[in-house]
Amino acid sequence: MTRLADLLSTVFERRYRPSPPLALQDLSLAELAEDLIGSAGETSGIALAGEFLCRFDRLDDDEKLTIFRHIATAMDIDASAARAALDAYQHAPSKVTYRAYVEKAEPRRQELIRRLNRVPGATGQLVRMRAELLRLGGKEPALAALDLDFRHLFVSWFNRGFLVLRPISWESPAHVLEKIIAYEAVHAIDSWDDLRRRLEPGDRRCFAFFHPAMPDEPLIFVEVALTLGIAGSIQKLLAETRQIIDAEDADTAVFYSISNCQAGLAGISFGNSLIKQVAADLSRELPGLKTFVTLSPMPGFARWLQERELSDDILEPEVLRALAALYLLAAKRADGLPLDPVARFHLGNGAMVREVHTGADVSQKGLNQSVGVMVNYLYDLAKVAQNHERFATHHDIAASSGIRALAATAQKNLSQDKPI
Amino acid sequence: MTRLADLLSTVFERRYRPSPPLALQDLSLAELAEDLIGSAGETSGIALAGEFLCRFDRLDDDEKLTIFRHIATAMDIDASAARAALDAYQHAPSKVTYRAYVEKAEPRRQELIRRLNRVPGATGQLVRMRAELLRLGGKEPALAALDLDFRHLFVSWFNRGFLVLRPISWESPAHVLEKIIAYEAVHAIDSWDDLRRRLEPGDRRCFAFFHPAMPDEPLIFVEVALTLGIAGSIQKLLAETRQIIDAEDADTAVFYSISNCQAGLAGISFGNSLIKQVAADLSRELPGLKTFVTLSPMPGFARWLQERELSDDILEPEVLRALAALYLLAAKRADGLPLDPVARFHLGNGAMVREVHTGADVSQKGLNQSVGVMVNYLYDLAKVAQNHERFATHHDIAASSGIRALAATAQKNLSQDKPI
Amino acid sequence: MTRLADLLSTVFERRYRPSPPLALQDLSLAELAEDLIGSAGETSGIALAGEFLCRFDRLDDDEKLTIFRHIATAMDIDASAARAALDAYQHAPSKVTYRAYVEKAEPRRQELIRRLNRVPGATGQLVRMRAELLRLGGKEPALAALDLDFRHLFVSWFNRGFLVLRPISWESPAHVLEKIIAYEAVHAIDSWDDLRRRLEPGDRRCFAFFHPAMPDEPLIFVEVALTLGIAGSIQKLLAETRQIIDAEDADTAVFYSISNCQAGLAGISFGNSLIKQVAADLSRELPGLKTFVTLSPMPGFARWLQERELSDDILEPEVLRALAALYLLAAKRADGLPLDPVARFHLGNGAMVREVHTGADVSQKGLNQSVGVMVNYLYDLAKVAQNHERFATHHDIAASSGIRALAATAQKNLSQDKPI
Amino acid sequence: MTRLADLLSTVFERRYRPSPPLALQDLSLAELAEDLIGSAGETSGIALAGEFLCRFDRLDDDEKLTIFRHIATAMDIDASAARAALDAYQHAPSKVTYRAYVEKAEPRRQELIRRLNRVPGATGQLVRMRAELLRLGGKEPALAALDLDFRHLFVSWFNRGFLVLRPISWESPAHVLEKIIAYEAVHAIDSWDDLRRRLEPGDRRCFAFFHPAMPDEPLIFVEVALTLGIAGSIQKLLAETRQIIDAEDADTAVFYSISNCQAGLAGISFGNSLIKQVAADLSRELPGLKTFVTLSPMPGFARWLQERELSDDILEPEVLRALAALYLLAAKRADGLPLDPVARFHLGNGAMVREVHTGADVSQKGLNQSVGVMVNYLYDLAKVAQNHERFATHHDIAASSGIRALAATAQKNLSQDKPI
Repeated sequence: MTRLADLLSTVFERRYRPSPPLALQDLSLAELAEDLIGSAGETSGIALAGEFLCRFDRLDDDEKLTIFRHIATAMDIDASAARAALDAYQHAPSKVTYRAYVEKAEPRRQELIRRLNRVPGATGQLVRMRAELLRLGGKEPALAALDLDFRHLFVSWFNRGFLVLRPISWESPAHVLEKIIAYEAVHAIDSWDDLRRRLEPGDRRCFAFFHPAMPDEPLIFVEVALTLGIAGSIQKLLAETRQIIDAEDADTAVFYSISNCQAGLAGISFGNSLIKQVAADLSRELPGLKTFVTLSPMPGFARWLQERELSDDILEPEVLRALAALYLLAAKRADGLPLDPVARFHLGNGAMVREVHTGADVSQKGLNQSVGVMVNYLYDLAKVAQNHERFATHHDIAASSGIRALAATAQKNLSQDKPI
Repeated sequence: MTRLADLLSTVFERRYRPSPPLALQDLSLAELAEDLIGSAGETSGIALAGEFLCRFDRLDDDEKLTIFRHIATAMDIDASAARAALDAYQHAPSKVTYRAYVEKAEPRRQELIRRLNRVPGATGQLVRMRAELLRLGGKEPALAALDLDFRHLFVSWFNRGFLVLRPISWESPAHVLEKIIAYEAVHAIDSWDDLRRRLEPGDRRCFAFFHPAMPDEPLIFVEVALTLGIAGSIQKLLAETRQIIDAEDADTAVFYSISNCQAGLAGISFGNSLIKQVAADLSRELPGLKTFVTLSPMPGFARWLQERELSDDILEPEVLRALAALYLLAAKRADGLPLDPVARFHLGNGAMVREVHTGADVSQKGLNQSVGVMVNYLYDLAKVAQNHERFATHHDIAASSGIRALAATAQKNLSQDKPI
Repeated sequence: MTRLADLLSTVFERRYRPSPPLALQDLSLAELAEDLIGSAGETSGIALAGEFLCRFDRLDDDEKLTIFRHIATAMDIDASAARAALDAYQHAPSKVTYRAYVEKAEPRRQELIRRLNRVPGATGQLVRMRAELLRLGGKEPALAALDLDFRHLFVSWFNRGFLVLRPISWESPAHVLEKIIAYEAVHAIDSWDDLRRRLEPGDRRCFAFFHPAMPDEPLIFVEVALTLGIAGSIQKLLAETRQIIDAEDADTAVFYSISNCQAGLAGISFGNSLIKQVAADLSRELPGLKTFVTLSPMPGFARWLQERELSDDILEPEVLRALAALYLLAAKRADGLPLDPVARFHLGNGAMVREVHTGADVSQKGLNQSVGVMVNYLYDLAKVAQNHERFATHHDIAASSGIRALAATAQKNLSQDKPI
Repeated sequence: MTRLADLLSTVFERRYRPSPPLALQDLSLAELAEDLIGSAGETSGIALAGEFLCRFDRLDDDEKLTIFRHIATAMDIDASAARAALDAYQHAPSKVTYRAYVEKAEPRRQELIRRLNRVPGATGQLVRMRAELLRLGGKEPALAALDLDFRHLFVSWFNRGFLVLRPISWESPAHVLEKIIAYEAVHAIDSWDDLRRRLEPGDRRCFAFFHPAMPDEPLIFVEVALTLGIAGSIQKLLAETRQIIDAEDADTAVFYSISNCQAGLAGISFGNSLIKQVAADLSRELPGLKTFVTLSPMPGFARWLQERELSDDILEPEVLRALAALYLLAAKRADGLPLDPVARFHLGNGAMVREVHTGADVSQKGLNQSVGVMVNYLYDLAKVAQNHERFATHHDIAASSGIRALAATAQKNLSQDKPI
C-alpha cells in the first residue's frame, strides 16, 4: 500500500503490526490455514492470516502448487455432510437447518479465502494469489474448482457497486501511471514521454476502475481521444503532429484502447460498465459530444481470410472493406456468436458495427492480425440495452445500413465463387 | 449519497441515470426480481436492479413482507437439483461439475442480492432492506433463511479488510455527526453542544469504521477520553467542569462508549477490531499512553442481585464491589459464558477485568441496571490474543489479582449463607 | 488550526514548536517587536514573532492599546530619512538608491506585521489583531495610520487571486458550519436545525471565500435559493412548508443573504467577486438557470420616508412600491452615490434594480428598516461590466423600465406636493 | 493550472471566462496597464488584468523589454507628489494625510502588479514575468527598480506563513515530479527511473514548499537519505547497490541536495525554513533519528587552492581535509562572511561545520569544483538559533572540535610557508 493510500483511507491500518506470536512461526502453511478456519474469534485469526499471506509470497512455484493442492483437496466439500444437511433442511426448513446447510454446502476453502481477506490490504494479495493459481494450475480439476471458489468470491467483492471510476491524467500519481504503462495491452506505451502524449493533451482522456481495497491498482482502463468526426486510422489518431483540438469543440469520443490490469480477476468483466459509464460521463462534461465509438482491431480477420485463401484478392480497399463487414456480421463460432473476440465483447455490450476502415492500423501487429483493417463499434446509449438484449437472446448483430450493404456485396461476390 | 461522497469517490456514478425503459414500469416487483436473476448481461440488469430498489423503498410493511416471502420461497434452493449436482461432482470432480454444483447449491436469492448490489449506492439500501426484514420477519423460518443469505453476503462484503477507520471530530462533516448523535446508544448525546463537548476538547477522541460503498454512514463508533489514571466515574469523566489535560500528558485512554449504527448489520461484529485498532493507533500517536481500558456498564448486575435477594445488603461500597467482582467472574449462562453481555463482548475480545467502581454511574439508567457500579476492562495489546484464546477455548476469564481477591471474599461470605 | 487543516495542508507546521529561549521571556512586548524588526535572520525571528503573538492574545484592552500606540509611534516613518532617500533616488536613480528609498518610505511597522506573519497560522491572528485595533482605536490619528498599514498589507495578502471559493453544505465540517451560524448577519440562523434547512434541501446553495492560510475561517459567504421565477418575499422563500423543487428545474438563483465574517478585514471587499463567481458557476452547473437576482433589504428606506413625513400615506402597496423605486433611483448622498448602502454595494458591482416588493420582509427588523419592502438586484453577467463602468464614472443607476416608470410616477406625485 | 488543482481548490475559477469585451482588444499593453491602475472597481479590472497577462505571454523579448521599460518609467514614483504628501503628513498626521502619503510614496507599478494578481492563477504568471525581467533586464537602473518592486511584493506574498510543506514521493502527481526532474540542480536526475530511485526506496525522502496559489509548482525542494551514521560519499549514498535500510532503523538524515525551482523568486530565501522544518518533522516521524546533516559540495574550494598554488601538495587525504577545514573556517570575503557560498547558506541558517571528506564526490563536477571533497553541515535544532545569532552578529563560525583542530594544523603548516 502506498503512503498516499495509507494517509487518505486507511491511516491507521499500517500501524497495527504486532509481531507474530512465536508459536505461529513453527506452524506449516497447511497448519496455519487449518487453524485459521478453526479459529474461534477474529483476534488470533488476523495474525494467522497475516502470517499465511506473508509466507505465501515467498514460496517458489512448486511450493505454491503444493499448498494450492492441499487447500483444494483438504478443504473440499464434505459431500455426505452436505447431503445430510440438505436432507435435513428439505425435511424441516428452519433457521437452524438452513444455517447448517449453508455451512456444509460450501467448501471450507471459501471460508479460508474470506478469512485471509480480513487482513488490511489482503484483497490485492488474494488477487495475485489467484493469478498464480491460474498460471500454475493448468487443467487439474481440483485446482480448477479452487479457482472457481476464488472467482465466486471475487464476483461478490468486485461487484459493480463497489467499484470507483477515476480519471487518469498526467496529474495522477506516478506509481499508478507506471501501471498504466505496464498494463496497456492494445497499443503499447513506450516511455513516460509516450504516456504523457496519451494523457496530457486537451483532446485525450483516460479512465480506470478502482476497488477501494486496492486503491493503487487500476482494474481496467480505457483511453479516449476526442475528435471531430469518427477516426479511421489509429496512427493518425495518435500522431504527435495532429492538430490538438479543444475538448469543448469535439463531437466524437473514440475509445481506442481498453486494457485489463489484473490477471487474477480473469473472468470478471468490467469493460462493459466502464465504457458505458465513461460515455455517460463525457456526454455530461462535454455536451458537444454526440458520438461514442471505438476504434478496434479485428484480431481474427487475417486468419479468416487465409482460411478462405482470399489473401491475394484484397488489393482493392473496397473489396477488403466488404470482406471485413462480412467477417463481422457472418463469421460465427459453433455457438452462434461472432468469431471475432473483440466483436463478441462490444456487441455483447450492446454496441453496433458502425464502420470499417482499411489502412487503419499499419503497425506490424495490425497488418498481421487484421490486414490493417479496423472497425468502429458505436455505443448509442439510447440503444445499447435493446441491442444487447437482441444479441444475447437471438445473436442478432446490430450494424449500420452501410455495413449491411457492404457485407451483402461481399456475400454475393463470394457466393458466385465459393461459400464462406 | 452526499455531494461530498459523490465528488470524491464516485463522481461519475450519479450521472448515468437513464430513465427506466417503459417496459420495466409494467413489471411487478416479483417479475423484476425474476428477470434480474435471468438477465443474460449486465446492461439491462442494472436498470432492473435500480427499478427494484427504487420501488422497494416505497412499499408499506405488508407489501415488504409479501415480496420478502416471495423471494424466500420462490428463490429457495432446488433441493433435488442441488443433490443431483452434488452427486455428479462427487462422482466425477471437474471444473464443469463443480461449477454446476456451486450454482445449484446456493439459493437463487443470494444471486439476486448480489445483482441488486451492482447499482452504485445499492449497498446501503440492501443493509436497510435487511433491517426491514429483521424488523418484520419475526420467527418465520423462510424469512430467517433469507436473512441468513443476507448475512452470508454481508459477512463477505463487510470483511474487516474492506473497512476503513476514520477519526470523528468536530471538524467532521455535519451529516456524519448527526448520525453520531442519533446512534449513540450508551450515554445519550442531547444536542449539538453536547456533541461538541464529546469531540472538541483536546482530551477527547472518537473513531468509526466506514465501508467505502457507504461513505457517509458510520458502521460502529467508539468514544475515548484521555485521562491521568483510570477513570472510575462516568459523570466525572464527562463533567464540563473537569480539568482538560493535554493529550500528550495523558497516560490512559478510556473507551467509555461503543455504539453500533446499522440495524441491518446485526450479527456482523466490528467492535473487536475497532477497539484494538484504535488502541494500537492511539499508542502510536501518543506514546505517553500506557493503559487502554473501558469504563463499562454491567447491565445484568442489578437483576442478578435481586434474584439473590441481595439488594438490601449492599449499603457498603466494599461489599458491593466484591459482589460485582463475583458477578463478573462467576455468574454464567448455561453455555458457560458470562451472564453479563458486556462482559461477554470484552472478554471475548481478549480484555481482562481490571477494576470495579461503585457510584460510577449515578444516572437513572446506571442505578437501575448496575446499581451505579461500572467496570474497567483492560486491553493489554500484548495479551489480548492469549486471553482471547483461553476464553474461547476454556471460558477462562482474565482478571486482575485485586478482582480475584474481591470475588473470593464475596464467594466466601455468601457461601456461609447461600450459594450463587 | 484544526486537525483537518493540519493534516491536509500543513501537516508539519504544528510540530516544530521549540520552546522559546529563556531570554525571550524577559523581553517586553515592545522589545520583542523591536528585536523582530532588527533580527538579522529568519531563525530567531520566528521565535520572536511567535512569542509576540502568543503574548498579545493574553493582553487586556488597556495593554493592547498601549502596544498599538507604541508600534504606531515608535515605528512610524522617519520623515527626514524618507525625504533624503527620495532626494537621492530622484537625483540618481539606481538599484541602490531605489532600494534605500523603498526601505525608508515605508514605516517600519509594516515590516513588523510582515515578519509577524512568518509564523505558521499567524495570518488569522493578525486579522484578529486588526479587529481589536478597530474596536479600540477610535479616531486616534496614529492608530488610524497603523490601521492603514494593516489594511495595505491585507489588500495584498487577501488579493482576489489567492482566495478559494468553496461550497458550504450540510456535508461541510461542523467547525466551519458553526461559524456560518455565528456570522449570518442578514437573516439570523437560530439553531443547527435551522442551518440544516438552509443547506440541505436540493433547492438551496451556499458558497464562501476562504484564504489558504486560514482554511477554517470563511471570509464571506452568500446563501442562495433556487426558484421558479423571481422571489418577492423572504418569508415565503425560507418557509419550511414550501414546495422543494429539483435544482435542475429552477430557472432563477436568488442571493438572499451575504455576510462578511471577519471584522479584521473591514474595508477589503470580497462581495463583488463572490456573487459574480457564484453566478458564473451556478450557470454552468445548472444550465436551466437564466436569472440571477438578490432579494435585498432597503435599510435606509423607513428613515427616508419618515424624513419626508410620508409614513402615513403609504397604505397603498402601489404607492409604497413607487416610493421605493424613487428612493433607490433618486435618493443620493452628498457624493452623488445612492443613499442606500445595499444599493451602493450591488449597483457598484454592476447589478441593476430589477423589481421592488411590498410585504416582502414582515419580520420586525424588515418592517422597522424597510417598511417590509425588499428589492431584487439583477446580476446580468453580460452587462455587469458596462453597468459598473457607468455607475463608477457617471453614477448612472441601471434599472428596469418598470422601476423607472414607478419612480417617475412617485416623482410626479410628490412634486405636486413637496420635493424630495 | 492542472485539472487536479482546479478540482480541489479552485473548482469554480476556470469557469468564469467571459470573452474579453471587444474594446480591450484594441488597447495596447501600455493602455491596458494604465486602465487597470485607473479602473475604479474590480469588475473590469479582472478582465483588463487577464487580457494583459494573456498578451504578455505571447510577446518576444524585445516587446517584453519595451513594456517593462514603459511600466518602470511611466509608473515610477512622482517624487514631488510624494514629497508634498510626506510634508503634509509630517505637518498634520491624520488618517487622511497618511492615506495620501501611502498612496504617493509607492510607485504605481506596485499597484499594477497587485491588480494583475487579482486574476485567478496570476501569481505563477507574475513569478515567470519577473524571471523574464531578470533574464532581460541586465543592469538597467529603471528595470532594477521595477525588479525591486516585484521582489517587495513577492516577499509579502511568499511569506513563510503562507507556504505549505509537502512530501514528494513516487505517489506524487507526475506533473509535479517532472518538475523535480527539471529543477534538480545539485546531482542531476537523468530519467524517470533515476527519479524513482531517489523517491521510492524506504530510506529516501523528499520535501518541497508550495504556495497555495501555485499548487502545481514546487518552490524549493530537498532530498534526504536516511542512513546509519554520517555519510561521507555522495556516490555511495546514491548507489543502487547499497543496502536499503528500514526508515525506523536509521539514526541519521542526510540532506544531500537542495534546489530552488523558480527563477522568478530569486532573492527570496526558503531554504532555511525548509531544512529546519523537515528536520523537525522527520525527528517526530522517526524518533530514532538523532543527527541531521547535509552532504554538501564546496564549490569554491578548488579555485581557492589554485590561487594559493596548493594544488600539487594535496596528494595526501589528511592534508586535503585540513586544507578544506581551513578553507571553510578562515577563507572570507571582504564583508567578513565565508568565501564559500554553500557555507554562507548553511552557517547563516545556524548549522555548524561537522566533518569533511575526501573522495566524497568523484563526479567530474565534484572533482573540478571541490577536488572531490564534501562537507557535512550539522543541524542541531537545539543550537541553530544560537549559532545563527553568533554568525549574524559576529560572523562566528560554529565547528566541531575535530574541524577546528584540522584547520589549526593546516594554518600552522601553511604559516611556516606562506599566509592564506
